[in-house]
Amino acid sequence: MNTDYFNQRASVRNFSNQPVGMTQLNDILSKAMRAPTCGNMQLYSVIVTTDEQMRKELAALHFNQPAAQAPVLLTICADFNRFSRWCRLRDVEPGYNNFHSFIMALTDAVIFAQQIVTIAEMEGLGTCYLGTVNYNAGEISRLLELPELVVPVAAIALGYPAGEVERCERLPSECIIHSEKYRKDTDEDVLFQFREKENYGANQQYVKENGVNSLASLFADIRYPKTMNEKVSEEFYELLERKGFC
Amino acid sequence: MNTDYFNQRASVRNFSNQPVGMTQLNDILSKAMRAPTCGNMQLYSVIVTTDEQMRKELAALHFNQPAAQAPVLLTICADFNRFSRWCRLRDVEPGYNNFHSFIMALTDAVIFAQQIVTIAEMEGLGTCYLGTVNYNAGEISRLLELPELVVPVAAIALGYPAGEVERCERLPSECIIHSEKYRKDTDEDVLFQFREKENYGANQQYVKENGVNSLASLFADIRYPKTMNEKVSEEFYELLERKGFC
Repeated sequence: MNTDYFNQRASVRNFSNQPVGMTQLNDILSKAMRAPTCGNMQLYSVIVTTDEQMRKELAALHFNQPAAQAPVLLTICADFNRFSRWCRLRDVEPGYNNFHSFIMALTDAVIFAQQIVTIAEMEGLGTCYLGTVNYNAGEISRLLELPELVVPVAAIALGYPAGEVERCERLPSECIIHSEKYRKDTDEDVLFQFREKENYGANQQYVKENGVNSLASLFADIRYPKTMNEKVSEEFYELLERKGFC
Repeated sequence: MNTDYFNQRASVRNFSNQPVGMTQLNDILSKAMRAPTCGNMQLYSVIVTTDEQMRKELAALHFNQPAAQAPVLLTICADFNRFSRWCRLRDVEPGYNNFHSFIMALTDAVIFAQQIVTIAEMEGLGTCYLGTVNYNAGEISRLLELPELVVPVAAIALGYPAGEVERCERLPSECIIHSEKYRKDTDEDVLFQFREKENYGANQQYVKENGVNSLASLFADIRYPKTMNEKVSEEFYELLERKGFC
């Protein structure tokens, strides 16, 4: 099969009002369930949000970013609840209330999420991951009434694209690919790898708009600062404890 | 685009000796780098293993399972090393030595891994995730010489399929999909959801071969038992600490 699509794809952050057909959506989700899964356990669930009031409340938990205004929001969860219930109903004690089991279910859920993204995009829909799912995972869990051993780990905005789609830059593939062992790059190598990103027009514009000295500062001081990462770390770990994974 | 492939795909556990062309492999990996990534940070690396001695050593760390005998093994890592180095080289203090940053990088890495799987399969190759990557993550890190803030989170066996490929059963899609809120299934619902899996011929055969009473017991007592999950949890968390993520 031709795989040119993968080179051309880009995430969509602005969606038209055109609704997504539920038959098509269910077909996409069903196809995505053929994605690889750990031991064929399918340790994930997806909550489909289309109701207007629910979309409003969920979008607010995603800081009302433009992409969160999509007609469909999908919240993909690491889910060991269903599997553990089944074990108990068969008189077997499940052993999945631990960190490793969370990592297994998280991996399963993200594989499933990415399969949804690819299928939807190949069918002409636009998608965007909402990384904010990790920031408000506790509140999202409450809104969606997630039970024990179920934690939201990916969120996808889905709909038909409105306007032009920006296909942004990527690092040179050479710096991502290592042969046999992890390569020991020099400082010059690293600076070279990020040169195109630093020189990219839109990135230079962001740096200017935010009044910072460099793109690295925009990331480390403004967009993903240490204090915020540490706060989210604590809250997310507490959620894992509350949900029985730690 | 036609998306029937997604319904038909299956993982491959037996590979022929036919080598995978390096040009094709690099093209697949480059295409996969257009996958969505958190803040366009590309928090992943891939170590390509094709050297015979390295394949042997790595396969051993995957318990020499049949799939690990593939001509190519890909180890996909959550990687905040490159990004943090770049920040420091630009005189910015990175703040990614924490749990949330690991989850971000893990998510990025798994999205990238699944994109590799899909592209490779659509180009006629066979793939199989080696879930064992989590079990021996410390030893794999040593073998591949992974530095600080780099942790292996997915492994893919890659090659041309040998023999027939088994397309196994899946849970009914209704039990994975929840509308607006997480559905409160009854015990009967759960048992019904797992009925097809329990009745699936190959699964009944595994239950018989392992001398257990039920499929649930095969999973919870033999394949993914509590003691093992707890041991891996501890070791994996220690690795995260050693690599500077916790």
